[in-house]
Amino acid sequence: MKVYLPNETSLEVSENSLVKDVALAISEGLFRNAVAGKINGELCDLSATVKEGDLVQIITMKDNEGLEIYRHTCSHVLAQAVKSIYPTCKLAIGPVVENGFYYDIEFKTPIAQEDLQKIEVEMQKIIKSDLPIERFELDRDKAIALCKRFKEPYKVQLIEDLPEDSIISFYKQGAFTDLCRGPHLPSTGKIKAFKLTSLTGAYWRGNSKNKMLTRIYGTAFEKKSQLDEYLLAIEQAKLRDHNKLGRELGYFTTVDTIGQGLPVLLEKGTKTIQVLQRFVEDYEQKKGYILTKTPLMAKSDFYKISGHWDHYRDGMFVMGDEKKDKEVFALRPMTCPFQFQVYLNKPRSYRDLPMRFNETSTLFRNEESGEMHGLIRVRQFTISEGHLACRPDQLEQEFKGCVDVMLYMMKAIGLDKEITYRFSKWDKNNKEKYIGSEEEWERVQDTMRNILDDIGINYTEADGEAAFYGPKLDVQIKNVFGKEDTLVTIQIDFQLAKRFEMVYTDSDGEKKYPYVIHRTSLGCYERTLALLIEKYAGALPTWIAPFQASILSVNDRCEDYCRGIWEKMLEEGLRPNLDLRAEKIGKKIRDAQLDKVPYMLIIGDKELENGNTVGVRHRKLGDLGQMTIDEFIAMVKKEVKELKLD
Amino acid sequence: MKVYLPNETSLEVSENSLVKDVALAISEGLFRNAVAGKINGELCDLSATVKEGDLVQIITMKDNEGLEIYRHTCSHVLAQAVKSIYPTCKLAIGPVVENGFYYDIEFKTPIAQEDLQKIEVEMQKIIKSDLPIERFELDRDKAIALCKRFKEPYKVQLIEDLPEDSIISFYKQGAFTDLCRGPHLPSTGKIKAFKLTSLTGAYWRGNSKNKMLTRIYGTAFEKKSQLDEYLLAIEQAKLRDHNKLGRELGYFTTVDTIGQGLPVLLEKGTKTIQVLQRFVEDYEQKKGYILTKTPLMAKSDFYKISGHWDHYRDGMFVMGDEKKDKEVFALRPMTCPFQFQVYLNKPRSYRDLPMRFNETSTLFRNEESGEMHGLIRVRQFTISEGHLACRPDQLEQEFKGCVDVMLYMMKAIGLDKEITYRFSKWDKNNKEKYIGSEEEWERVQDTMRNILDDIGINYTEADGEAAFYGPKLDVQIKNVFGKEDTLVTIQIDFQLAKRFEMVYTDSDGEKKYPYVIHRTSLGCYERTLALLIEKYAGALPTWIAPFQASILSVNDRCEDYCRGIWEKMLEEGLRPNLDLRAEKIGKKIRDAQLDKVPYMLIIGDKELENGNTVGVRHRKLGDLGQMTIDEFIAMVKKEVKELKLD
Repeated sequence: MKVYLPNETSLEVSENSLVKDVALAISEGLFRNAVAGKINGELCDLSATVKEGDLVQIITMKDNEGLEIYRHTCSHVLAQAVKSIYPTCKLAIGPVVENGFYYDIEFKTPIAQEDLQKIEVEMQKIIKSDLPIERFELDRDKAIALCKRFKEPYKVQLIEDLPEDSIISFYKQGAFTDLCRGPHLPSTGKIKAFKLTSLTGAYWRGNSKNKMLTRIYGTAFEKKSQLDEYLLAIEQAKLRDHNKLGRELGYFTTVDTIGQGLPVLLEKGTKTIQVLQRFVEDYEQKKGYILTKTPLMAKSDFYKISGHWDHYRDGMFVMGDEKKDKEVFALRPMTCPFQFQVYLNKPRSYRDLPMRFNETSTLFRNEESGEMHGLIRVRQFTISEGHLACRPDQLEQEFKGCVDVMLYMMKAIGLDKEITYRFSKWDKNNKEKYIGSEEEWERVQDTMRNILDDIGINYTEADGEAAFYGPKLDVQIKNVFGKEDTLVTIQIDFQLAKRFEMVYTDSDGEKKYPYVIHRTSLGCYERTLALLIEKYAGALPTWIAPFQASILSVNDRCEDYCRGIWEKMLEEGLRPNLDLRAEKIGKKIRDAQLDKVPYMLIIGDKELENGNTVGVRHRKLGDLGQMTIDEFIAMVKKEVKELKLD
Repeated sequence: MKVYLPNETSLEVSENSLVKDVALAISEGLFRNAVAGKINGELCDLSATVKEGDLVQIITMKDNEGLEIYRHTCSHVLAQAVKSIYPTCKLAIGPVVENGFYYDIEFKTPIAQEDLQKIEVEMQKIIKSDLPIERFELDRDKAIALCKRFKEPYKVQLIEDLPEDSIISFYKQGAFTDLCRGPHLPSTGKIKAFKLTSLTGAYWRGNSKNKMLTRIYGTAFEKKSQLDEYLLAIEQAKLRDHNKLGRELGYFTTVDTIGQGLPVLLEKGTKTIQVLQRFVEDYEQKKGYILTKTPLMAKSDFYKISGHWDHYRDGMFVMGDEKKDKEVFALRPMTCPFQFQVYLNKPRSYRDLPMRFNETSTLFRNEESGEMHGLIRVRQFTISEGHLACRPDQLEQEFKGCVDVMLYMMKAIGLDKEITYRFSKWDKNNKEKYIGSEEEWERVQDTMRNILDDIGINYTEADGEAAFYGPKLDVQIKNVFGKEDTLVTIQIDFQLAKRFEMVYTDSDGEKKYPYVIHRTSLGCYERTLALLIEKYAGALPTWIAPFQASILSVNDRCEDYCRGIWEKMLEEGLRPNLDLRAEKIGKKIRDAQLDKVPYMLIIGDKELENGNTVGVRHRKLGDLGQMTIDEFIAMVKKEVKELKLD
């Protein structure tokens, strides 16, 4: 019979050939490197049977899917090893993730980081045995019966969620069998380089009402050298991890009794956010923005108008119970409906538009405890938020203006090279998540796509990532570990103006609804600070550094002189730090260096005698010699004015 | 028999003499002016009987108590009038308050402001009839029976709250009888000048779980001229009332669906608060304060440590229910326990102290709906909060430092002449409201009193006004209507350090608890803004005015020139407003004048031709003629630098 290959040639193979037979028929080298196959575009095992006329593709480690299958098999080897060491444990799920895989497992007695090595040794044994991995299928009832026999309640639940007529696939390697869609490597011996990296807690199905399971993370590569390279990169990333470095340098801390996702910003974190906040407020004022300060909470009535009550309530902190309390309040997850009230404060005409509102806004999101991460994923944050109301003929220009402000900010803090763009659209198969008709959504998404193309932004598209009221341009960024988050978002809203009866009187005397653009410029201050700490490994550029210079006294005779410099720098709007401790100057310099402060001013008898000089040292450039105080201040002020990024 | 008079003379009167007989025996003039009496220091009616040896004093309208009794009788006349017009209404309470009196009444059908005139007419009739007012007493059971017969359920409740053996007094005037402690004027005809001023809702016993009653406010004076003078003063106060003026000028608004006590700050309110916030943060930095930014909410566990859960929960917004939720959060009513975590972030030594922390902090207080007032009494506010940790030997100096910072702020905004001081102590009869022992409270209050006396502050003392953790110095201020509120508070706390195990290592190596001073400097920004609007009748001094100059274009040829001035002023850190509307310049000037902006810059062809000048007009001084743009900017910057108050 004949099968087709991706290069549009065909190949004659015997009836009942398997994918691996096709591979061998092509070449022995391909057969050796084959990891899995694709029949008519669907991933499958090498042991899958091909039919007359099938399009057959051989997957190797050169394909993206190859590495994923490799890692997926590794997660089964992990599960087998764990079951063999801890026979009473219960397996939940074991998927592939970016850079590796994990398996969620319920242990009778919790295991610790130290136990991972023991598990690795067991995994090595399984790999060395080179067990063949075999797929078999059962109907739903038999599949449930099998998992019950294995005493795997999570697997039973997973199958029970599938339709009654499902055919369920399993994979067997040696004495171990696991529920799995596959495909997998043909045998365990194909795995060459893996490492278990960490251990965390994770709720079954990500829901905090469920049991907390143990998640074992691991990674795997085709070659040992790739694994080593990756592990080294991770070690280096850890040195930049804001969640470690930010704490060590005194940017922030967390307190168990306060709760997760509620970081306490210490002096340094507060100062850098203060600098950024003033910078954003002042810059946006020049761009014609109107600053507001609106309440952080409102009655449920208000969120019913805005749609948040029906479309966002799970993400909100609610105070009270509508069944028994006269008034139920909720903390705001977004600023939009609040800032709209400023628009609504007066009648507006077409001549008043565009109106650009901004706010340094605190928001609250009721995220699950397990999802918190340092300053990046938190329950309360402060954002450079804002909303623009404009006429249809102004939409493109105003949207572009928002992109420009955002780009200006990203350049100012040095993140402009690290961002990518995502055009986040609705999910038409999940209409109840959104307000507005299909026709409206398609029209506005087309409008937005045109604007993005006109501006010339290079974006990917993502279904189901829109806000409930409209599509978004998301500015994405990765943290040191490669995890991607949204830093900034610019959204077109064609729904909420109607809900709040926000109108303007057009030149024809008609009342019309404006378009509303929801946007941030610098994003959430906490998250942006985290990314800055990671990018600069804690050594923030002078203009945003919490302290710009540490004034170090060599002896106690210099103290008053040091204080004078401190006061003078403050008067000039700079941020000095004063170190008058009774320590040796060498230690003070080392401490300031560890503290990553841009400049050190070393003040001893010589400077005291001169009366107007400072000994200047830069954290990277080292000794810069003597300067007058005024020269030093002028130099730092110039750096600040130019937003220099070192 | 012999009675004694306040001037230490004695007077011979016949047995069973009444107070009014004593008045007549002294002089006919005194008898005519007599309102009530005092026997041995206790207020009584003129019809009270005196006994041998009593010290008898005659109260006239010259005494403070005289006016209060006069107004109290007026509230009974009000009640009688209302009962005669609305026989089914139920009377609650009718006390005297500052500047007048009120009566809380339940009406079958709500009455309106317009109905007050009808009630006034009825009151005039009762006064004209000059009904004698007679006191009688009943035991508790008979008193309850009487009020039940009158169908006055609130009166019944009031009596039921009294001890079983109480003797209850009533006052009867014509066909109307009211439960009352007295004393009262001898007859209704003594009332010469009164006015019903307003109508509001008020919960029975001030508790929102109870029924909402109608509160009728009125005032009364001895002479018509005094009443007129008072009403005029009120009318003038209304012109300054921030709750009216602040809305009209665009400082803030409120939105029913958001909720009471949650004002929306519009551009002007936001800008002035931005100016004040930066001013406070920068000044306090120079005074050695460490800025923090701590979470606005925490788990209930946290408030249990701090004591807020047991001593302040009614004033807090709580999210969740401890009976069923894994985590219960509450919004913070105070910053203290959060800021303590910054202290706790590192071990501290005696050399590190004093440590001064400040924060621009948002707080939430779950106040009753009925108690809200504009920007003065709100549910969410932003405060220039801060905490100092110091050794005992530093306490006085640090406390004085806090007073100095507060005084600097009050002078800067021009409220220093309007404030008074209150030393707020605990209530030793209500110990469960506080934490700490009696001995500790007395010691710390003595310490605080000594400090206040050393500083030379002129204060009144108030029992029961302390915080639950320590005594306070409250800086009090009155609004335009004479209602007093606390603007700033400086507190000594000797309890919370223990609860959070905040210690320092002293020079002797021992771990010790520091004193903590809780303080604000400028108070709550919203409240301070309200008082500024009232003091300056909306015309805020240039340095804190939301806009410092309105740039008014005479014609459209000048628009670019106007925009250039606007940009230049922004670059210089000033706050310009741009008015390019197609209106006549006369209207633009009038609008700017109504807007109370300090300067108007009138830009026409002449200025355009000169190329670097502006026509300057001041809101009070009028036309200041031509200046170069640079001269104008220099002049305004000088005013700002000098914190000039006009």
